[in-house]
Amino acid sequence: MTQTDLTLEEKASLTSGGDTWHTTTVPGVVRALTLADGPHGIRRQDEGSGDALGLRHSLPATCFPPAVALGSSWDADLLRRVGAALAREASALGADVVLGPGVNIKRSPLCGRNFEYFAEDPHLTGALGAALVTGIQSLGIGASVKHFAVNNQETDRMRISADVDEQTLREIYLPAFEHIVREARPYTVMCAYNKINGVYAAQNHWLLTEVLRDEWGFDGLVVSDWGAVNDRVAALEAGLDLEMPPTGTDGRIVDAVRSGRLDERVVTRAADRLLDLARRLESAERFEDWDVEAHHDLAREAGRGSAVLLKNDDTVLPLDPRARQRVAVVGEFARTPRYQGSGSSHVVPTRLDTAWDALHAGVGPETELTFAAGYGLDGAADDAMKAEAVGSAARADVALVFLGLPDEVESEGFDRTSIDLPQGQIDLLRRIAEVCPRVVVVLANGGVVSVADWQDSASAILEGWLLGQAGGSAIADLLLGVCSPSGRLAETIPNRLADVSSFLHFPGADGHVTYGEGRYVGYRYHDTLGTDVAYPFGHGLSYTRFEYSDLGVTETGANEWAVELTVTNVGDRTGHEVVQLYVAFEEETPTRPRHGLRGFSKVELTPGADTRVRFTVTGRDIAQWSVARGAWKIDAGRFTVEVGASSRDIRLRAELTTPGDGHVTALDGMSTLGEWLDHPVGGRVLAQRLGNGRGAAILGGGSPALLGLARGIPLAKFSTFGIGLSAEVVGDLVAAVRDSEAP
Amino acid sequence: MTQTDLTLEEKASLTSGGDTWHTTTVPGVVRALTLADGPHGIRRQDEGSGDALGLRHSLPATCFPPAVALGSSWDADLLRRVGAALAREASALGADVVLGPGVNIKRSPLCGRNFEYFAEDPHLTGALGAALVTGIQSLGIGASVKHFAVNNQETDRMRISADVDEQTLREIYLPAFEHIVREARPYTVMCAYNKINGVYAAQNHWLLTEVLRDEWGFDGLVVSDWGAVNDRVAALEAGLDLEMPPTGTDGRIVDAVRSGRLDERVVTRAADRLLDLARRLESAERFEDWDVEAHHDLAREAGRGSAVLLKNDDTVLPLDPRARQRVAVVGEFARTPRYQGSGSSHVVPTRLDTAWDALHAGVGPETELTFAAGYGLDGAADDAMKAEAVGSAARADVALVFLGLPDEVESEGFDRTSIDLPQGQIDLLRRIAEVCPRVVVVLANGGVVSVADWQDSASAILEGWLLGQAGGSAIADLLLGVCSPSGRLAETIPNRLADVSSFLHFPGADGHVTYGEGRYVGYRYHDTLGTDVAYPFGHGLSYTRFEYSDLGVTETGANEWAVELTVTNVGDRTGHEVVQLYVAFEEETPTRPRHGLRGFSKVELTPGADTRVRFTVTGRDIAQWSVARGAWKIDAGRFTVEVGASSRDIRLRAELTTPGDGHVTALDGMSTLGEWLDHPVGGRVLAQRLGNGRGAAILGGGSPALLGLARGIPLAKFSTFGIGLSAEVVGDLVAAVRDSEAP
Repeated sequence: MTQTDLTLEEKASLTSGGDTWHTTTVPGVVRALTLADGPHGIRRQDEGSGDALGLRHSLPATCFPPAVALGSSWDADLLRRVGAALAREASALGADVVLGPGVNIKRSPLCGRNFEYFAEDPHLTGALGAALVTGIQSLGIGASVKHFAVNNQETDRMRISADVDEQTLREIYLPAFEHIVREARPYTVMCAYNKINGVYAAQNHWLLTEVLRDEWGFDGLVVSDWGAVNDRVAALEAGLDLEMPPTGTDGRIVDAVRSGRLDERVVTRAADRLLDLARRLESAERFEDWDVEAHHDLAREAGRGSAVLLKNDDTVLPLDPRARQRVAVVGEFARTPRYQGSGSSHVVPTRLDTAWDALHAGVGPETELTFAAGYGLDGAADDAMKAEAVGSAARADVALVFLGLPDEVESEGFDRTSIDLPQGQIDLLRRIAEVCPRVVVVLANGGVVSVADWQDSASAILEGWLLGQAGGSAIADLLLGVCSPSGRLAETIPNRLADVSSFLHFPGADGHVTYGEGRYVGYRYHDTLGTDVAYPFGHGLSYTRFEYSDLGVTETGANEWAVELTVTNVGDRTGHEVVQLYVAFEEETPTRPRHGLRGFSKVELTPGADTRVRFTVTGRDIAQWSVARGAWKIDAGRFTVEVGASSRDIRLRAELTTPGDGHVTALDGMSTLGEWLDHPVGGRVLAQRLGNGRGAAILGGGSPALLGLARGIPLAKFSTFGIGLSAEVVGDLVAAVRDSEAP
Repeated sequence: MTQTDLTLEEKASLTSGGDTWHTTTVPGVVRALTLADGPHGIRRQDEGSGDALGLRHSLPATCFPPAVALGSSWDADLLRRVGAALAREASALGADVVLGPGVNIKRSPLCGRNFEYFAEDPHLTGALGAALVTGIQSLGIGASVKHFAVNNQETDRMRISADVDEQTLREIYLPAFEHIVREARPYTVMCAYNKINGVYAAQNHWLLTEVLRDEWGFDGLVVSDWGAVNDRVAALEAGLDLEMPPTGTDGRIVDAVRSGRLDERVVTRAADRLLDLARRLESAERFEDWDVEAHHDLAREAGRGSAVLLKNDDTVLPLDPRARQRVAVVGEFARTPRYQGSGSSHVVPTRLDTAWDALHAGVGPETELTFAAGYGLDGAADDAMKAEAVGSAARADVALVFLGLPDEVESEGFDRTSIDLPQGQIDLLRRIAEVCPRVVVVLANGGVVSVADWQDSASAILEGWLLGQAGGSAIADLLLGVCSPSGRLAETIPNRLADVSSFLHFPGADGHVTYGEGRYVGYRYHDTLGTDVAYPFGHGLSYTRFEYSDLGVTETGANEWAVELTVTNVGDRTGHEVVQLYVAFEEETPTRPRHGLRGFSKVELTPGADTRVRFTVTGRDIAQWSVARGAWKIDAGRFTVEVGASSRDIRLRAELTTPGDGHVTALDGMSTLGEWLDHPVGGRVLAQRLGNGRGAAILGGGSPALLGLARGIPLAKFSTFGIGLSAEVVGDLVAAVRDSEAP
């Protein structure tokens, strides 16, 4: 089968869906492919539900921890295994392509869909996204990396223009996509709803063709987010291959070709990519079912690896499950967990663990457990509920207080307006802290919540995010010390919303959101300015302790270094450490973020054990995007390799020097005097010429201020000021430099 | 004489200068007009100097305080009088047009040319700039408002693109120009060197024609900054009339017309504007000379009104000139004042007062004055100089320590890289504070310097800026209580450079500077976020005290209010108060700066006296620029009128309500469900239609999260999701809304 066998109408039909969740069938040529939502669990619509999108009605599937949690695992191997499990379930549920992962950057904690995204950092996002894609596609099922690109908010998402400078795009918002496309070769990419610098992603030729295909080598299919296409012809020309769901407008494609407005090869190309996708999917092994228990256990493992222990004063955790103690469990979420967000990613789980049940199952008979709801599912707390909870805590040795955000404040489709917990929960916690000496807070939230106002009331805080269907068991495992917490923050917890760099620019208005903070997203901002934060990026405690030693750096090539160090478990429990590598540029006046994550490795160590951790630092890791060159550039100079346990807990560092990338910007008449003087050849050529007596005036006549002024003036402008070089002389100088550079 | 009498060549010749400081002569038609640098003093080149730009060689003229000081006077009447004096001197020196004022906004304290600009605030800048222009033009001499526009740094100023969103342009970087053009009708505007959003100011049709002329009604001549033209033809077409200095390229204009690439009417238009300017200048009264003493006295008055008393603990100031006391004067700047910056604005003064001389002249014989340099003019201090100064301070009752920036760090043409005083001066001050109980610091600096590190070592700080040729006397007048300080900060003094909103975005690289902080410049940033600052915008102490009372607000029209209050001098000296009016919008999540200056009034009051101060608040004062509408918009709702003595010392406030501007955005299919529901007519029309059973699904079926999601979806997209309204139904709805709105 090739596209040349198809009529124009057939090809056009392949560029949109057959229905909401299927591509179009061309009998004898290609079957309908089935697409299913599913970044953290397959949402295969129950077709009898009567709800076209089926957001709340789908066939049961394992609800793994959403991306907010998986992102905090910093565990690529885990993501690969979850991906493979998702693929197995997709296959069993008849789906060909899983619509995930979502790899947009958490620009603001207010983004309503942050629970579907991994991190505020592009390196972490790219590495984990690639692992998930690799896992999914390991069974021949397709992945769809989304939402390409710069879809960092829900407010007005179907119309708004994300106005972002190119350097920020290249260094913050595109690299995760780039890494996944280059490393994991996803079958499909899903374009975003929004505009980028005024052009809808679905119609953005620069994005979908020049960057995605020509630069990164993407060879798969670009599908629209559901309803993201506004102009079928423009979208096809830009490089969008498949509109979903169908809008009954294939005729417009045909008309455009017939009337000469659209080159038929554009339609052929898109149809061809659909056929290519179908061909790729033929190799998928098909499964009838999956091991529900095994997948549930994987979800539990993922949950255990994703929760982040923020604080643990006086080693209040873990609880000894065999101790004689009274434990007051407080909070409706212990009984009715929040374990995923709302919207297209919502999964109907195969089963659902609660922390309350799991704690019961996990403790011995010496432990007395009590439960009090404390507040309702809407987050509100009435006086009677509070009083009951406070009373139970007053009689307990330790209170486990489950707090979190109500379901209805976190969803696809709208953004949050606050990062605070409901006030009633905070009041409840404060009252409990007054009567109970040991208070442990367990959080359930898809977006970051502020802890600054209340964390003094808790000895320990376990950030449980939304932890999937086995989250209750995972939380109990961690609280009871079955294993040690090993999640690390994939996003900074700020002291207050106003400390977030996008605060003044989010979510925009009038159809535009300006990414004014540029590259200074998350810790890149806080660490450059030295802003106080509640908990920094990369932070997370363990029940054991790790030491870092013996940093070794070896130059292994041109702008390539091997970095090695030893990590030792110096505590008395088995645990995981997440070793983080940053590349830092220490500048008095910053021209770039102070540092950025460039590698991480999660290692498990028994007490006393050590291991050698290895990283490679490449030229790209120390490069910046040059808008002028339209390429990555490396400036000669010093940089620092930092290794540590968070962006603010750097344990080892090494100062290195790069010779740069060897690029020398060609001089011309619009090059400034300063650029001429600093240029290896230009400086010499100019000095020779300035021997003619004009030099003194041009060089400021000995005044530092006048020389400073003159250095900023393009050479060709000096003649304008009557003190310089004629156009002919400047031309001669340019020629002289070019000649001396010629081989 | 009309342009039709001129040949194409003659017209082309008028579009560039005859030489560096003159326009072209067409014999019998128009004489050469003389342009002279001169924001704070006329720089009329001594034509025998041999330095084409004559930056250091010009005829003597009164050096008034530069704009950094005049901006701090908050005194429009003073600016008018200085303007008239400048015009008188220009006339006497044979100049027709004064190349000033500079009204760019102080975006960063690092901008090397901040000493030539008034303020970080567009209202203050616009009001003072208009006053100076009015003063200059009151004698028939032309002013040239510069640098139009967005020239807020010196780094790479001749090439860099200032990348700024339109709302920020309209609300921060253009309003001062707009106000001056509309109110003071300057004869000329000078375009900037830089690009704005990629297009050179000199070639920017949007800026020079659409905004400047079509919107604001400018009817004068646009002259280039010296050397700002890169493409003569493009510049003429964009609306630039006169290239300065000439580049010998008039032939290109002629060729372009002859070859049909340029419409001759474009050349005629520019030449016509030059002829118009010459005609206007014919009405100027010509003067042979000026009263040198009177102008010096005006410069002294301006200096007294511009210095800002930042702190005055224990009323250490003023000194009693008749007291028996030992006063140690420390600091080379007391003897060798820094009184202006470097570059095109540099004036050769008619005379020069030093603080040392003026203090001598001002005190009685009971006061013993000593002098020690403490440091050299380069800012460095050797140990012997320090020891001498500390010794003299140790023997004194009070030390007057003159500190400041070396001349060579502040100039047109390059930016600063730090806001710190030289470390040697700070060390000196600390040692003096250890031995002398009463330390007064007098500062000399054109850009803001940080005080956070050393201000505890001073009981009083008088920020003297660069204060012009009579600055030394003005400082002595203030220190000795001849008059009370009345300057107010026109720019925030931050605690540290990193607290400045442009810190991470200044000065850009690779030919681009992104104005990422948007509208949050200066106090608009600090006051929205609540950042600590050393001294806020508008701050300045007096030797007397003022009380504010009896705020009255009257609605005087549609979106127009009269605001009145009483100010009373409750201290025991005569003094000036600067009453400041801000309009504030208090929002939890800011969509605009928290407040902005909208009026100010400097009033002089004797002890016990009071006066009624009046302001008008208009619709424009509460409007924001709407990019979507391309116009100013007023949203209905509450706002606050604040009256106070600084942006952080609000004394009186009144909450007001505006009905908005009556604009209702027309609904269409791409309007979201939320916009339909919130629309006065659309909500009703939609509710009727949703009675057909589709309503439940569209409205989220009772789930707040799903309703929240649905509200963000354009109405036309619901059909895409299969749960909504067909294109026909949406069309009917749009028609129904339009019909019901029709008259």
